[in-house]
Amino acid sequence: MIIQLDSDITPAEQQQLADKLASIKFKPTNVKTQFANYLIGVGKEEFDIRSIGNLPGIRDIHRVSDAYKLVSRKWKVNDTVLQIGDDIQIGTGHFALMAGPCSIESEEQIAATIQHLKKNRVKIMRGGVYKPRSSPYSFRGLGIDGLKLWHSMAKEAGIAIITEVMMVEQIEAMADYIDIFQVGARNSQNFNLLDALGEVDKPVLLKRGISGTLDELLQSAEYIFSHGNEKIMLCERGIRTFEKAYRNTMDINAIAMLKEKSHLPVIADPSHGIGVRKFVDKIALASIMAGADGVIFEVHATPEKAFSDGQQTLNFQEADLLISRMRKAFRLREEY
Amino acid sequence: MIIQLDSDITPAEQQQLADKLASIKFKPTNVKTQFANYLIGVGKEEFDIRSIGNLPGIRDIHRVSDAYKLVSRKWKVNDTVLQIGDDIQIGTGHFALMAGPCSIESEEQIAATIQHLKKNRVKIMRGGVYKPRSSPYSFRGLGIDGLKLWHSMAKEAGIAIITEVMMVEQIEAMADYIDIFQVGARNSQNFNLLDALGEVDKPVLLKRGISGTLDELLQSAEYIFSHGNEKIMLCERGIRTFEKAYRNTMDINAIAMLKEKSHLPVIADPSHGIGVRKFVDKIALASIMAGADGVIFEVHATPEKAFSDGQQTLNFQEADLLISRMRKAFRLREEY
Amino acid sequence: MIIQLDSDITPAEQQQLADKLASIKFKPTNVKTQFANYLIGVGKEEFDIRSIGNLPGIRDIHRVSDAYKLVSRKWKVNDTVLQIGDDIQIGTGHFALMAGPCSIESEEQIAATIQHLKKNRVKIMRGGVYKPRSSPYSFRGLGIDGLKLWHSMAKEAGIAIITEVMMVEQIEAMADYIDIFQVGARNSQNFNLLDALGEVDKPVLLKRGISGTLDELLQSAEYIFSHGNEKIMLCERGIRTFEKAYRNTMDINAIAMLKEKSHLPVIADPSHGIGVRKFVDKIALASIMAGADGVIFEVHATPEKAFSDGQQTLNFQEADLLISRMRKAFRLREEY
Amino acid sequence: MIIQLDSDITPAEQQQLADKLASIKFKPTNVKTQFANYLIGVGKEEFDIRSIGNLPGIRDIHRVSDAYKLVSRKWKVNDTVLQIGDDIQIGTGHFALMAGPCSIESEEQIAATIQHLKKNRVKIMRGGVYKPRSSPYSFRGLGIDGLKLWHSMAKEAGIAIITEVMMVEQIEAMADYIDIFQVGARNSQNFNLLDALGEVDKPVLLKRGISGTLDELLQSAEYIFSHGNEKIMLCERGIRTFEKAYRNTMDINAIAMLKEKSHLPVIADPSHGIGVRKFVDKIALASIMAGADGVIFEVHATPEKAFSDGQQTLNFQEADLLISRMRKAFRLREEY
Repeated sequence: MIIQLDSDITPAEQQQLADKLASIKFKPTNVKTQFANYLIGVGKEEFDIRSIGNLPGIRDIHRVSDAYKLVSRKWKVNDTVLQIGDDIQIGTGHFALMAGPCSIESEEQIAATIQHLKKNRVKIMRGGVYKPRSSPYSFRGLGIDGLKLWHSMAKEAGIAIITEVMMVEQIEAMADYIDIFQVGARNSQNFNLLDALGEVDKPVLLKRGISGTLDELLQSAEYIFSHGNEKIMLCERGIRTFEKAYRNTMDINAIAMLKEKSHLPVIADPSHGIGVRKFVDKIALASIMAGADGVIFEVHATPEKAFSDGQQTLNFQEADLLISRMRKAFRLREEY
Repeated sequence: MIIQLDSDITPAEQQQLADKLASIKFKPTNVKTQFANYLIGVGKEEFDIRSIGNLPGIRDIHRVSDAYKLVSRKWKVNDTVLQIGDDIQIGTGHFALMAGPCSIESEEQIAATIQHLKKNRVKIMRGGVYKPRSSPYSFRGLGIDGLKLWHSMAKEAGIAIITEVMMVEQIEAMADYIDIFQVGARNSQNFNLLDALGEVDKPVLLKRGISGTLDELLQSAEYIFSHGNEKIMLCERGIRTFEKAYRNTMDINAIAMLKEKSHLPVIADPSHGIGVRKFVDKIALASIMAGADGVIFEVHATPEKAFSDGQQTLNFQEADLLISRMRKAFRLREEY
Repeated sequence: MIIQLDSDITPAEQQQLADKLASIKFKPTNVKTQFANYLIGVGKEEFDIRSIGNLPGIRDIHRVSDAYKLVSRKWKVNDTVLQIGDDIQIGTGHFALMAGPCSIESEEQIAATIQHLKKNRVKIMRGGVYKPRSSPYSFRGLGIDGLKLWHSMAKEAGIAIITEVMMVEQIEAMADYIDIFQVGARNSQNFNLLDALGEVDKPVLLKRGISGTLDELLQSAEYIFSHGNEKIMLCERGIRTFEKAYRNTMDINAIAMLKEKSHLPVIADPSHGIGVRKFVDKIALASIMAGADGVIFEVHATPEKAFSDGQQTLNFQEADLLISRMRKAFRLREEY
Repeated sequence: MIIQLDSDITPAEQQQLADKLASIKFKPTNVKTQFANYLIGVGKEEFDIRSIGNLPGIRDIHRVSDAYKLVSRKWKVNDTVLQIGDDIQIGTGHFALMAGPCSIESEEQIAATIQHLKKNRVKIMRGGVYKPRSSPYSFRGLGIDGLKLWHSMAKEAGIAIITEVMMVEQIEAMADYIDIFQVGARNSQNFNLLDALGEVDKPVLLKRGISGTLDELLQSAEYIFSHGNEKIMLCERGIRTFEKAYRNTMDINAIAMLKEKSHLPVIADPSHGIGVRKFVDKIALASIMAGADGVIFEVHATPEKAFSDGQQTLNFQEADLLISRMRKAFRLREEY
């Protein structure tokens, strides 16, 4: 059960509500976000929902049977559209593009990428400064200094930044230099990190775990929301299956299903989704037809020379073509 | 190694070739199809391919390192386009639609379906008369009598028939009444069935096993081809993964990859691919963007009352809309 | 619902029962096996089971909510023990060993294997004469002639034969020369083959599909049973997962669970289960501790020279050691 | 390449070695653990290993082609045996038992568990004080206060403590109160956490990710080792597959394979491995036969009333029986 509280609910009214919930043995959790105050009640007893809904100080109340609550469409029927800066909107009716290298490498690389994005009217740049790597002997990113350089250049160009955060301690240091926090697949159930991202007023793009179920993804989103941050995007980035013809198996079905289960925007990551450069375009276009609100992909001036693994990275020419095709596909979908 | 033989190769020339292959320890397999004579050589020794290619009686020769040979694009660079009857072409540049019920049920049902297909200019009707069912206590189809009735009605309407064959003994009895044999996911590695279908001059739509790799699918296709039948379509119909939010996980990546690995047409089956009615349309459209040469899907006047499980079956109205959208998506793709 | 009928039930009593089932809208299926007559009723209405159980001509009646019925432990609480020939028993309280090469190759090979088995008091020899192979260009077995040779040698030595049957047409030709039919993983849902094996009075070892669920395996066993053959063994032989460090992932959990869900004997196939020779012993012993009633494994005088893939095949010395260890492990388990 | 340095290597000798590595373009990483100093070189050029091995200040040198280095058996042929306190040894030749509740709940619960362990001569108690939970609305553990209480009681009883650490910030606070850090499946690739655990001189039990490959697990162990901590145990705790008859699929194969690939001890977690109480015993015994150096399992006085999910938790009586059986199985294995 989710109860949205009036912004001016009085302490006495709150106590009355608490007593009522206690009487039906519902465990209450208070949630205060950027936008509203909620009370989540978890319990099993049957009761007349109007007996709570009619109490003073309550704006709205719904039963939500899903394991996740606030991110469920059963709570919020209308799609969430995130506003980022002045001119970026992410969610139904808009098409978001985020592109850039796997890793931030150098001033030259950042400059070339920004130029490419500007030319294509892409407003969000991706890139890693903290890199999760299977092996401890691999390059792990330029860190906060790389981020500061990137930020200064991106800001001047009017480009927003999305980059991965890997641990709680990084959040504060990063917050001033980024526009969207990305949570990677390996941290999809790093609950302390999710808790902490719930306490920041910055959008979070949350990737599905490499073998995470949709339910787990939505419950991870619920962690962020229930700690106070409603600005969440879900991201499908390929799952692990028996098939080894590609590095990952993009689960196109997830895009369609997540749009149904949740009101949050859904972003597709075709680069990691299939992990094979020559198929990124087809998977990106397929994702749009399946309902994605945006696409995040890897692009680099010279993928073969990228610091990190460039097997899934497009070059600028390939990206130019893909962006134009994606916009056409999005327009076709919107006409349906 | 694949060697295509001249149609008028002499016995002496064949002997010369056999001797040459024996000398480099290559195991030969003769393949005679509707269209050509081949000799497949499997071996490991290094040799100068020209020393064979220059022999008399040989039209073409290629090394093919894949486990599958004749179905590989390394052998045949140009896409195969199947001709079915006078007016149906399946393969690159064309968009094939096959629709109909899960099971053939009755004269009324066939009539209604045909009318629906005609209205939408769909030229191939699907439907099961032999049904593979997990439980022995489930409805297993109307059998050959159902097929004969269906055939007489479809023929009159100028509609081609695709239906599943489950065992070798059925092939001969069915052959006169169908236009395309379908091999279901559970029989994707029923090698005796594949052998036998190689000996018929009828197109075969071969479905990927529920956890079949692309390599296995292509080797299964090789069974059919190497027994004499070049008319093969590959079909992605969803795989089994850890995710249980949908009945199957449509592997959109397979469509892109199969078009790359093989010259054969690739058909998408979104109905089984995701197995959830309300998402069939999105998965169908995504499949087209990923490169599918056609779509096979389930439609029924009243899905709720279908004999077999109708959870993934569209009604006529939904199908009307989907067909129109698919054609638009195909046209957009062709413009790229 | 399963009803076991008296052997002398009269036509009138049968009619009375049929009428009763019709009145509660249960669909009846008659099953006549080597051992008994059953009537399976499938339906959804509530009714008092005694109103049927009290009818004349009925020996026993149980509700079985599983999708499979006759193979369920809910129908038959006591474990099934199969009697093969005079001196082999397979099922709880006994430990069955079946060993031999992947493929039957030659008289010498058969002789050497039989000698090895006799020395180790192993009474059942495995070996393939019809081989399912992914590629059409691979060795597909010696066929019926190989089987006849093998049979004459095994009979003289008092060794029983288990070998794979791949298609309905082979059953009759093979029946006189084998003691146990094996259904391979790829045919685990070849329903026509299962139907036909239900009509033979020979034991069947049914392997789980490469990604078959336990429910599917049990429903496949139900096909055999419901067509008249109660002599069934279930076999775990490894499943397909994301992990590629081994060829297959032996699902030890399945052994424990199948013994719980069904009364049928459960055999472990560690050779295919993990597919790596050096680990076959550990997986075999683990399977016994998980509850396996027997183990089938591959052994060859010179695994490196075996016709078929010998990666998972033990040599005689390794097999000697394993057999002795398995018997100790089985004794320890029985003492618990 | 791994180079073990003499403890008294001089700066000049180190420089000579660094120059040599630079000359063959190997990237060096210095590793200093509790026990030794290493230099890991990663590169691709061919060179004569003796040209490095003969330099002064070098104790040992080996090529290791695996992605992981120091945890590989190619580096260290002999099994690692961990010494914990005065009387606990974990590794080949010893059998380690760790048991206790899912979550630490109360003084009474701790007391009852300790009594049960003492009676069974189990020296290590497991229990969660920080709980990773899919849902933010679930019980998340008693935290550091619970740990302090537990520690004082366990210390008095001479019982060692293993418990899960979820974030870097917890390490320091926990270190005085625990004997073994546990890294849960969801944090198996939380690289910052692994880094930080490498800097503590406490044993770490590292669980495989829910769909982590063995290679990933070993590379995660390499993170800990290469940051300075050699005291690592690997733990198989079930993977995610298509099969839903059990909560997880215990991958018994992993136990055999990890013992081959690495010198580190391998612990089995049958409770989570299958996730079904009635099968925990069979899976535990199977794990021992597959080569496990120890077993960690859940036990609770009244599993039905446990704070956290008790579906996989044994009661005391069941645990008594299992412990006795496991010791017999271990003895049988050691006799082989």
